Amino acid sequence: MRIFTKRYHPPGTLPGSLSVADDISEDEFTIRLIDYTADSYVENDSASAADCRASLSRDTRTWVDIQGTVSAGTLTQLGEMFGLHSLAMEDVVSTGQRPKMEMHSDHLFIIMSLPELTDDEIGVSQASLFLGKDFLITFNDARSDPFKPLRQRLHRAIGRTRSRNVDYLLYAALDIIIDQCFPVLEGVGERIEALEGEALAHPRPDTLQEIHSIKRELLLLRRMLWPQREVINALVRDEDNWIAQETKIYLRDCYDHTVQIMDLIETCREMVAGILDIYLSNISYRMNDIMRVLTIIATIFIPLTFLVGVYGMNFSHPQSPWAMPELHWYFGYPLLWLFMIVLVGVMLWIFRRRKWL
Amino acid sequence: MRIFTKRYHPPGTLPGSLSVADDISEDEFTIRLIDYTADSYVENDSASAADCRASLSRDTRTWVDIQGTVSAGTLTQLGEMFGLHSLAMEDVVSTGQRPKMEMHSDHLFIIMSLPELTDDEIGVSQASLFLGKDFLITFNDARSDPFKPLRQRLHRAIGRTRSRNVDYLLYAALDIIIDQCFPVLEGVGERIEALEGEALAHPRPDTLQEIHSIKRELLLLRRMLWPQREVINALVRDEDNWIAQETKIYLRDCYDHTVQIMDLIETCREMVAGILDIYLSNISYRMNDIMRVLTIIATIFIPLTFLVGVYGMNFSHPQSPWAMPELHWYFGYPLLWLFMIVLVGVMLWIFRRRKWL
Amino acid sequence: MRIFTKRYHPPGTLPGSLSVADDISEDEFTIRLIDYTADSYVENDSASAADCRASLSRDTRTWVDIQGTVSAGTLTQLGEMFGLHSLAMEDVVSTGQRPKMEMHSDHLFIIMSLPELTDDEIGVSQASLFLGKDFLITFNDARSDPFKPLRQRLHRAIGRTRSRNVDYLLYAALDIIIDQCFPVLEGVGERIEALEGEALAHPRPDTLQEIHSIKRELLLLRRMLWPQREVINALVRDEDNWIAQETKIYLRDCYDHTVQIMDLIETCREMVAGILDIYLSNISYRMNDIMRVLTIIATIFIPLTFLVGVYGMNFSHPQSPWAMPELHWYFGYPLLWLFMIVLVGVMLWIFRRRKWL
Amino acid sequence: MRIFTKRYHPPGTLPGSLSVADDISEDEFTIRLIDYTADSYVENDSASAADCRASLSRDTRTWVDIQGTVSAGTLTQLGEMFGLHSLAMEDVVSTGQRPKMEMHSDHLFIIMSLPELTDDEIGVSQASLFLGKDFLITFNDARSDPFKPLRQRLHRAIGRTRSRNVDYLLYAALDIIIDQCFPVLEGVGERIEALEGEALAHPRPDTLQEIHSIKRELLLLRRMLWPQREVINALVRDEDNWIAQETKIYLRDCYDHTVQIMDLIETCREMVAGILDIYLSNISYRMNDIMRVLTIIATIFIPLTFLVGVYGMNFSHPQSPWAMPELHWYFGYPLLWLFMIVLVGVMLWIFRRRKWL
Amino acid sequence: MRIFTKRYHPPGTLPGSLSVADDISEDEFTIRLIDYTADSYVENDSASAADCRASLSRDTRTWVDIQGTVSAGTLTQLGEMFGLHSLAMEDVVSTGQRPKMEMHSDHLFIIMSLPELTDDEIGVSQASLFLGKDFLITFNDARSDPFKPLRQRLHRAIGRTRSRNVDYLLYAALDIIIDQCFPVLEGVGERIEALEGEALAHPRPDTLQEIHSIKRELLLLRRMLWPQREVINALVRDEDNWIAQETKIYLRDCYDHTVQIMDLIETCREMVAGILDIYLSNISYRMNDIMRVLTIIATIFIPLTFLVGVYGMNFSHPQSPWAMPELHWYFGYPLLWLFMIVLVGVMLWIFRRRKWL
Repeated sequence: MRIFTKRYHPPGTLPGSLSVADDISEDEFTIRLIDYTADSYVENDSASAADCRASLSRDTRTWVDIQGTVSAGTLTQLGEMFGLHSLAMEDVVSTGQRPKMEMHSDHLFIIMSLPELTDDEIGVSQASLFLGKDFLITFNDARSDPFKPLRQRLHRAIGRTRSRNVDYLLYAALDIIIDQCFPVLEGVGERIEALEGEALAHPRPDTLQEIHSIKRELLLLRRMLWPQREVINALVRDEDNWIAQETKIYLRDCYDHTVQIMDLIETCREMVAGILDIYLSNISYRMNDIMRVLTIIATIFIPLTFLVGVYGMNFSHPQSPWAMPELHWYFGYPLLWLFMIVLVGVMLWIFRRRKWL
Repeated sequence: MRIFTKRYHPPGTLPGSLSVADDISEDEFTIRLIDYTADSYVENDSASAADCRASLSRDTRTWVDIQGTVSAGTLTQLGEMFGLHSLAMEDVVSTGQRPKMEMHSDHLFIIMSLPELTDDEIGVSQASLFLGKDFLITFNDARSDPFKPLRQRLHRAIGRTRSRNVDYLLYAALDIIIDQCFPVLEGVGERIEALEGEALAHPRPDTLQEIHSIKRELLLLRRMLWPQREVINALVRDEDNWIAQETKIYLRDCYDHTVQIMDLIETCREMVAGILDIYLSNISYRMNDIMRVLTIIATIFIPLTFLVGVYGMNFSHPQSPWAMPELHWYFGYPLLWLFMIVLVGVMLWIFRRRKWL
Repeated sequence: MRIFTKRYHPPGTLPGSLSVADDISEDEFTIRLIDYTADSYVENDSASAADCRASLSRDTRTWVDIQGTVSAGTLTQLGEMFGLHSLAMEDVVSTGQRPKMEMHSDHLFIIMSLPELTDDEIGVSQASLFLGKDFLITFNDARSDPFKPLRQRLHRAIGRTRSRNVDYLLYAALDIIIDQCFPVLEGVGERIEALEGEALAHPRPDTLQEIHSIKRELLLLRRMLWPQREVINALVRDEDNWIAQETKIYLRDCYDHTVQIMDLIETCREMVAGILDIYLSNISYRMNDIMRVLTIIATIFIPLTFLVGVYGMNFSHPQSPWAMPELHWYFGYPLLWLFMIVLVGVMLWIFRRRKWL
Repeated sequence: MRIFTKRYHPPGTLPGSLSVADDISEDEFTIRLIDYTADSYVENDSASAADCRASLSRDTRTWVDIQGTVSAGTLTQLGEMFGLHSLAMEDVVSTGQRPKMEMHSDHLFIIMSLPELTDDEIGVSQASLFLGKDFLITFNDARSDPFKPLRQRLHRAIGRTRSRNVDYLLYAALDIIIDQCFPVLEGVGERIEALEGEALAHPRPDTLQEIHSIKRELLLLRRMLWPQREVINALVRDEDNWIAQETKIYLRDCYDHTVQIMDLIETCREMVAGILDIYLSNISYRMNDIMRVLTIIATIFIPLTFLVGVYGMNFSHPQSPWAMPELHWYFGYPLLWLFMIVLVGVMLWIFRRRKWL
Repeated sequence: MRIFTKRYHPPGTLPGSLSVADDISEDEFTIRLIDYTADSYVENDSASAADCRASLSRDTRTWVDIQGTVSAGTLTQLGEMFGLHSLAMEDVVSTGQRPKMEMHSDHLFIIMSLPELTDDEIGVSQASLFLGKDFLITFNDARSDPFKPLRQRLHRAIGRTRSRNVDYLLYAALDIIIDQCFPVLEGVGERIEALEGEALAHPRPDTLQEIHSIKRELLLLRRMLWPQREVINALVRDEDNWIAQETKIYLRDCYDHTVQIMDLIETCREMVAGILDIYLSNISYRMNDIMRVLTIIATIFIPLTFLVGVYGMNFSHPQSPWAMPELHWYFGYPLLWLFMIVLVGVMLWIFRRRKWL
C-alpha cells in the first residue's frame, strides 16, 4: 500500500471533471444490471449504459453493479440517466477518497474502503455507492467480486433482500464491504501472534522489518477504515427516510462491526508497539550477553598473559639473587601453572558470585 | 487470550444466521429454569426448551439461565417463544462480541464480557442477557457458574431480589458480571507490585516476558471491558421504563464500578509502562557495570603486559651500553615489580577519583 | 500506596451489606457531635450513636464528625436515624472508593480523597460526607484530624460558618479536604527539583528508584484526585438547591483549586518524564565516557605491545643479515623507545584532533 | 520554514496599525482588476488602487487579485473604498497568521495558508480573502501565481464560475489554495517511502537528518493547515447567506479535501516516527554486529597469545625435568600448533552453536 | 521558574483572608490613578487608596493601575471602596493563580499570566484585573511596567481608547498582556533553531541541559498560558453586556492571538522532543563511531601480536627439524614482516568491503 493513494487533478481544474479516467477502454470494467421485485429477478452480466436506460422505465428495483475502472464516457451517461451530481462522479473516478456519505437532493452518495487480502498482501480499493428511490449503483475496483454472495441471495430469494426496498440492498452491500475487514484483521492478528513468539524467542533482523510492515499496514488501514464508522452512523441517524426504520436496526449491527474493527485495529497497533519494545530489548539483551561472555574470557586471559610475559623477560645479572630466581627453581614452571589455574578459579568464582556468569 | 476473538461469518452470509453453532450437542449446555414470585420459587436445573414454553403461560417471573455453548436448535426455539430478534440471537452464538445494549421493541438485549481467573490465567467469556416484561434470559459460557450466589439469594429470599421485578434481577446479574473484574484486577495489581520489586532489585530476562504478558492481558481486558461502561450508562439513562427508577439507583452503583475498573486498568497500564522503563534502564545499568569493571581490569593489565614485553626483547649489541642495560642491573627485576605495583596503584587511584570504580 | 486500594465484597454479595467492617471495636473511631446555631455552639467529643438521636429532635444545625474506622453497628444506627441509603453506607466502609457525588431523595452523598503527608510518605484516605437539610455527617480515617481548624472557627464564631446553613459547612469541609493537596504537591515539587539537579549533575542508581517512586505516587494521586473536579463541578451546577447561591461562589473557588491541582499533577508528571530522559542519557553519556577513555588507553598500548613482541622474537640465522639486525644495532633499544614515544604522540594527536579525547 | 513566522507589533501598539509594511515600494506587488458578468470579462493586469474605485461604481462582479507584499498606502485606500475592517487589514500585512474566518457586518474576511513547492523546498505563504456582496479581494505573496488557472477559466467562460455570484469565485479560489497541498504532500509521501527503504537497507547519518527535516516540515505544515478545516466548515455552516446553498455543496467537497489533507499529514507523521525507530534499531543492530565480530576475533586470539607467551618463558633449571620439558620435545612445536588449531576450531564451533556467529 | 508557584494558606484558613501579604510595606507598590473622559485625562502617579475614593465620586472613567506587591491594608480599603469580592481579593495576593474569569454581581474579575523576558530568563508574573461599570483596577507584579504604552495612548488620545468605555480599556490591557508572549516565544523559537543546528552538527553534554531547560520553560509556560484562551473566549461570549459588541470584535482578535500562542508552544514542544531524539541518536552514533575505529585498530594488532608471540617461543630441541625451523631460515624475519603486512592489508580490505570502515 502506498502512503499517498489519492488521485487528484492539478489545482485549478474545473470541479467535476473526469479527465483522469479518460483513456479507460470499455474492457476494463463490467456492468451487471439486475432488475428485481419480490417475485422476479433478471440479471444481465454484461450490460451497457444503454441497457440501464431501458431498465429505468421498468417498474422494478434496479441494481447497477459496476466492477473495474469505469470509463469517463459510460460514467457521464449513467450520471445523466440517474441524475448523479458531477462532484460525486468525480469522486468515483478519483479513487483513493476518504469514506464519506453525501446527501444530494435525489440520491445518497457513499464512498467506502474495501480491504482485500490477495497473495498475503493487504490492498484497499474504493467502493462508491449511489442510492436512489428505486435504484442502487455500486462501483468497485476490487480484484475479486465482493458482491457475488449478495447477487446469489437475491437470485435464490434467500432472506428478505428481495422483498424489501433498495435501502435494504444498500445495507446488504455495506455489510459485505465492512465484513471484508474481519478476515483481513484475523490474518493480521495471526501474524502479530507469530511475531510475538519470534520477538521473545529468537529475534532476527527480519523481525524488525515485519514489525515495521505490519505497523505500516495497520496505519494505512486505520486511515482508510476509520471514517466508515461515521458514514454508517450518519446513515443510522438519517432523518430524511432514505433508510427505512427496520433497515436501520440492521445498519446498527453494521455500526457495531465498524466499532469492533477500529477496536481491533487499535489493539493490534498497541500490540505491535509492545512487540517492538520486546524485540529491541531482547536484541540488546542478547548482544549484551555475547559481549559479556566474550569480555569475561578476555579478562580471564589478560592477567595470565601478563604473567607469562613476566617469565619471558630476560633479566640476567649473573651474580644477582634478585634476577628472576623463580626461573631457576626446581618446581618453578609447574608452580606457575598451579598459580595460574588457581587464579582462573578465583576469577571464575568471583564472577559467578557477582552473577556475571 | 487471543487478539482476534470474534467469531464471524464469511462476508455475504445472510444476516441472522446461526450456522456457527450448528454442531453443538445438547450436552454442552445446561438450561436452568427459575419461576419465582415474591412468595414462591421453583427451580428446574436441567430444563429443556419445551419446559420454558410451559413457564411462559404461568403468571410468574421467569429466569432462563443457560450455561455453556447453546445449540442452534434450542436457541431458535427460545427465540420464537420469547420473540427474540434474529440479529441478537446471531450475536449470542457469534461469541467474542463487543459489550453493547440494544433496545428492541419487546425486549432489551445486552452483551457483557465476563472475566474469569482460572489457574492463574485470565480468560474472558461472553454473557448475553435478554430482558422482557416478565422474563430474563441469560447466556454465558464461563467455566464456573457466576450466577450461583444470585440463585441462592433468590431461593432463600434474601434482600429484595424476589419482591422486585425482573429489572432488579437484571441489575443483580450485571452487578455480579461487573464485580468479577475486581478479583481479577486485584490479582493483576499484585503481580505488578511483585514485578516492580523484581525489576528494581534483580531484573531477569523472564521479567521482560512477564511485563509483556501483563501488558497484553491489560490491553485485551481493556478492549473487552471498556464498552461496558457505556452499556450501564445507557441503562441508567433509559427512558423507556425497562428499568424502574429505584433499580436505576442500584445501576448507578454498577456504573461507578465500571468507571473504577477502567481507572484501575489505566493505572495498571501506566504502572507496567513505568516498570518496563525501570527494567530496561536497570538491565543496561547492570550490564554497563560489568563491562566497566572488566574493562578496567583489562586496562590495568595492558600497560603491565607492555612493560614485561619490553624486557622480553632480545636487544643484544655486545658493546653497546644502550642495549637494555636494565636487564643487567643488580635490582632490575624487583625494581620492575616495584614500578608495576606503583603503576597499578596510581591507575586505581585515578579511576577511583574519577568515580569509575 | 498500593495500586489496588478498593475493598470489595465477593461478587454476588447482597448490595448494601456492611460485612467488611463487622469486627471493628468501638475504640477505633471517635464521634464528635456538634450542635450549633448562629448564637450557640455545643460540642460532644466522644458522643455515641444514641446522643446523635437526641440531637435530631433539637432545632439546631447538627454536624456529626466521625474519625476512624466506624463499626457496622454504629453505622447502621446512624443510617436509620438520618435515613441514609444502604448503598451509600456500604461505600463508607468499603474504603478506596473513587470520589463521587450522589443525590438521594433526602440527602447528598459525597466521597472525597484526602491526601496526607505522614513521615515523608504520601497516604490517601477516604472522606465520606452526607448533607441533609440541617445536618452534615463526615467520615474520615485520616491519621491527623483534618477538620480541627473548622471546628475551631465554628467554636470561636470566626467568619460566616456559624451564621450560614449546613451547605456552607459542607463547603468549608470540602475546602479543607481539597487544600490538603497543596502541601503534598509542594513537597512533590521540591523533590522533583532536587531530583532534576541530581539527574543532571551526578546521576546514581538511587536516582532511578526515586524517579520511579515519584512517578508512582503522582499516578496514584491523579487517579484519586481527578474525579474530585467533577464532584465539585456537579455541586456548583446543582439545581436542586442543596447548595445556596452564595455558597456556590465559594464552591467555584474550590473548583478552581481542583483544576489547579490537576494542572500541577500533570506538570509534575511531565517533569518527571523529562528527568527520566535526562537521567538515562546522562548515565549512558558517562558510561560511554569511561569506556571511551579506557578503550583509548588500550588502543594506545596495543601497537606498542606488538612492537616489543617483535623484538622478543628469536630469529637467529647466524649468517643472515636479515635476521633481526635491529637487535644488534648500537642504538637499537633507545631508537625503539623513541619510535614508540613518537607513535604514542601521533596517536594522541590524532585522537585529540578527532575530538575523541 | 522558520518556527516563529508571525510578524507582530510590539505589545501596546495601537490595534489596526499597518506599520510593518510601511516601507514597501509599489513594485513589490501587482494588482489585477477583473470585472466580469455572465457575458463580459475585462482584466487589467497592472491596475492601481484608483482603478478599483472606478470598478466599484460599475454594475459588474469585481475581483481584485493582489500578488506580492502590498504597501500600507494602497491597502489603506482599498480598505476605505471597500469598507474593510482595520483589524483585518492589519492581519493582511502581519503575515504568518493562523488561518481563520471572520464575519464583519459587510464583508467576510478569510486567511488561508498557501503551501508551495519551490526547488524541492516547502514554503508556506499567506492568502487573505475579502468577500463582499459583489466583490472578492484576494491577497497572496506566493512566488508563483496560484490563481492563474482560475482567471483563465473565467476568461474562457469554462464551467459555471462566470454565471454564478462572487461566492462561487471565493469557492474556486479556496479550492485552488487547498488543492495546492496535494502535490506538496505527494512529494513528502515519496520522500518518506524513499527514506523507508534507506532506513531498512543502508541507514546513514544523512538519513537521520532527512528524517528530522521531514518531521519538522510536517509539524509546521500541520500547524499552518490544521485550522483551514475549521474555516471551511464555518463557511459551510454559515447562516448569513454569504454563501449560496448550491455553492455550499462545492465547499463541502473542499471540506472533505481539508480532512483528507490532515489525515495524510497525520499518517506521514506516524510513518516518519516509525522510520526513526527503524533507523535507530537498524543502526544499533549494525553497530552491534561489527562489535560482535571484532570481539569474537579478539576472543579467539587471546588464549592463543597466552599460549605462545607460555612458551616464550625462560624457565631453565638445568637439572629439573619440570623446567618446561615441552620446549625440548621432538614434536613440541608442531604439537602446539595442532593444539592451537584445535582450540580455534572448538571455539568457533561453540560460538556457532550459540548463534554468536 | 519554579514548578510549584502558587502561594496558599494552610488548609482550614478562613476563605478570603489576605494574611500572606500582611508584612508588605507601602514602598513595594505604586498606585497610578487615572481619571479620563473623551476630552480630559488626569494621571496621579503615586496615588494612595484615599485618592481613589475621591475619584469614585467624580463623573469620569477611572483606571487604578497598581504595580508591585500590594499591602493587605491598601487592598482591603480598595475592596471596600469598589465593592470587590473577598475571594477575588485573596486571589490578588495569593499569586501563582491559574488564569480565570469570574463574574460577580457588580464587577468582573480576571486573572492573567504575564510572561516577561528579563536577562534572557523567562519569568511569569500575575496580572489581576477588576472591571466595574466605570472603573478598571489592574494589579501586576511584573519587573517592567507593561501598561506604559497604554497610558501613553490614553494621554495622547491616540486611537479610540479614550472615547470608548472602560471595557475597551480592559481589552487594551488584555491585548498588551497577551502580546507579551510573542517576543518571549520568538526568543524561544530562536534558541530552538540554534539547538537544532548544534544537536545535528556537534552535540555536547551542554546541549542536553539546554534541551531540558527549554522543555521545562515551555511546560511551565503552557500551564500558565493555556487557560487564558478560555478566559478571553468567556469574555467574547459574555451575555451580561460587560463587554460592548464593538469591543468583542477586538477581543476576538485577542482570542486568535491566544490560539496562535498555544499553537506556537505546542510546535516548540514537539520540535524540542524531536531535537532530543536527534541529540541522543547523534551522540550514540558518534560514540559508536569512536568505539568502532578503536576496536578495528585493536583487532588488526591482535593477530599480529599473536604471530610475534609465536616467534618469541623457546622451542629448542637440538636435533628436531620441527623445532621452529622458521627462526633459522635466511629470510625468516623479512618473510614474517611481509606476511604480517599482507595480513593487515587483507583485514583492511575485508573491513572496508563490509563497510566497517
